[in-house]
This record gives sequence, C-alpha cells and structure tokens, in this order.
Amino acid sequence: MAKYPKIPEATIRRLSNYLKCLEDLENRNEKVSSSALLANMCNVNAAQVRKDFAYFGEFGIRGMGYNVKELKFNIKEILGINREWKIGVIGIGNMGSALLVYKDFLKQNYKIVAAFDIDPVKVIGHISERMGRPVEIFHVDRLKEVVKVREIEIGIITVPPSEAQKVANQLVDANVKGILNFSPSPVSVPKHIRLRNLFFTSALDNLIYYLSN
Amino acid sequence: MAKYPKIPEATIRRLSNYLKCLEDLENRNEKVSSSALLANMCNVNAAQVRKDFAYFGEFGIRGMGYNVKELKFNIKEILGINREWKIGVIGIGNMGSALLVYKDFLKQNYKIVAAFDIDPVKVIGHISERMGRPVEIFHVDRLKEVVKVREIEIGIITVPPSEAQKVANQLVDANVKGILNFSPSPVSVPKHIRLRNLFFTSALDNLIYYLSN
Repeated sequence: MAKYPKIPEATIRRLSNYLKCLEDLENRNEKVSSSALLANMCNVNAAQVRKDFAYFGEFGIRGMGYNVKELKFNIKEILGINREWKIGVIGIGNMGSALLVYKDFLKQNYKIVAAFDIDPVKVIGHISERMGRPVEIFHVDRLKEVVKVREIEIGIITVPPSEAQKVANQLVDANVKGILNFSPSPVSVPKHIRLRNLFFTSALDNLIYYLSN
Repeated sequence: MAKYPKIPEATIRRLSNYLKCLEDLENRNEKVSSSALLANMCNVNAAQVRKDFAYFGEFGIRGMGYNVKELKFNIKEILGINREWKIGVIGIGNMGSALLVYKDFLKQNYKIVAAFDIDPVKVIGHISERMGRPVEIFHVDRLKEVVKVREIEIGIITVPPSEAQKVANQLVDANVKGILNFSPSPVSVPKHIRLRNLFFTSALDNLIYYLSN
C-alpha cells in the first residue's frame, strides 16, 4: 500500500474513530458501509471520510461502499496495530483501575501485562474487587526489571501530577518506546521517545471552542 | 482580536496543550516564555508554536518572548473558557470517580455541579472515601430536572458502553449543549449538539502510528 509521506495529524485521529465505528458496524453484522453512513456515525461529513482514505489509496468500490472487515484491517495496518502491543500502567488509583478494566484495550491488541504502584499490597485489595481479568501489580521500584522481562513497549502514567515527571524519567530509563501520560501535569522526555499527554481538560477545551465559535 | 474563519483542528488541540504548559510555567513563577521554551515543553517545534499563534494575531514581542499570564488569558479567550462551565457526570464507576476528583477541572473553570448514577446510594459510599470536594449524586432518572435547575451545559458520559447511547439521548432530551463521551462505544446525537467521543484506544492508536511510521 502506497503511503504518503505526510498525513495530517487530524486524519490519523479520525482513522481511530473510523475504526471504532467499523467495530460497531461489525457488531451489528453489517458487511458494507457507505462513506455517508460511516461519516454519520463518526460525526464528520462524507467528503471528509473519502478525503481521509484518499491518502492511503482506494479502499472502497465506487457505488458499492466499503467492505467493513477489509477497511478495518487496512486502518489497523496503517496505524500499526495489527499486532499485539504490551503495556504497563503506573499508578493504580481511580484512573489506573479504570484502565485495567477497560475492555476495549484487549479487543484492540493492547495488552496490559503489568501494573505498578508505590503500595502494591494496598491496591491489590482495592482493585481485586472489581476486576475480572487479573493483572499482576508490582512495586514501582521494580519498573525497569519488569519492563524488560515482560517486554513492555508502552507505559501509561496515571500517578498524581506531582509524581508524573519522575515516573516518566523511570520509563525512559527502562527503555519503553512510547508514553501515554494521563496525569494532568505535562511531562518531558527525550526526542527518541514518543509521548502523548492526554489531558481531560483539553477534551473539554476542544468541545467548548466549537460550542463558543 | 481578529479571528480567522477557519482554524485547523490540530491548532485548537495544541492551544489546549500550550495552556497546560503555560500553567506549569506560572507555577514555577516564570513571567515570560520564548516560543522555543514553550515548544520544548509541549513537544512541538518552535515554528509550529509561532504558526499556531499567527492565526490569532501577534501575541509576543519579537525578541522578547511571550508574557505567560497574557498569553494564557488570550488562549482561554479564544477557546471560550474564560467563564465557568457547569458540568454533569453520568456514571460513577472508576472513570466517573476519577473525573470527580480531577483537580484540574476546577482550575480551568470546569465545575462539576452534579453526578448521576443508577445506584446513587451505593456510589455515595464508594466515592465519599476518596473525595475531598463533595458533589451531589442523583439517580439518573432525575437527569432532566437537575440539568435544568443546576444549569448544566455539558454532560460527561462514563457509563458502560451498553448504556452510552441511552444516556446520550437523555442528555439531548435534557437540553445540554455539549457531550463528552468517555465510554468506549461511539454515540450519535443531533447536529445541534456538540459531541466529542474520547476513546482511550484512540490515544494509543495515535501514539503507535507515530511509533511505527
């Protein structure tokens, strides 16, 4: 598949959303989707859908719509998620617990293979009540060792903001490839590590910008 | 301030991130920031920072950098968050609880004025242990009435995916202006309602795209 050198960030974001909507269609046993249907499900317009897919060559057959299963496969291929990615979650409070039980991670080849906390004994009791799937919880001091043994490539930070940069440094030292930071404090990492800061306030800021303008 | 008619979505997203970084600078008592410093904190390049701000006129003084406080004010003005926004959270499991104690909401004029659950008595016990700031919890059947009385403009959905569309419909019926959906199931709403689906898998998809390409 021909890949264009420069895909807009917004297109990459929308691909993820298309994927979610395609899964929804698959769950409803729909085999084919028009760009109009997909657009409607994803809250964009149909021209945008076609334009986004045009970056990656032709997916649909004119007048026939998209094959749901094929399109899903292609998007996963583009995003690089057609294989399993091993993840560690650091900080098992409310947010960390929510991620440990987030069923969609598994569906998407995201496997949380270890969790870390400064008080693993306490959090084992705290989360065992509500978790179906067990994830082993380690003291955060064992981060580097466990990242290596369990081949963790991505670390998710869900510690309090005051601890976020320290944990980010530990993850860098442990040689993860990417970091997703859920704490409300921005962290910095060296350029060779991929980082996403996910601030809930940003999601609201964005919503409100479009509400206000 | 002159506003250009069409600001790229990615710029709007970055404005939120700049805001977080400016707060960080303010906490460290920094009065002025260069575009290079801001860029470094926000993991973008300095040219991008200057380009983003150029959409909204001149913020900085050449060679002098940006006044942190002023820039923060201007970004908030652009995003429409220089006033308080009242929010209701529906579904008080791990994720809902995490949002109720998310300190950054208050800093940003986001005020959670009510929470809703199908079992408010149970969740009161569940969250009262870990919450500093009390938020009144109502049965979800009272959503429409409470949205009106407490002037809630934005609803955040944190219920299980099977209930998400039902809650979205109830929020539309209750006349909120915007909806932020944290459940992993995409929801649809009429065009006059602003909607953001925030999927954690999308944040990972995005990270991995840039890891893989």
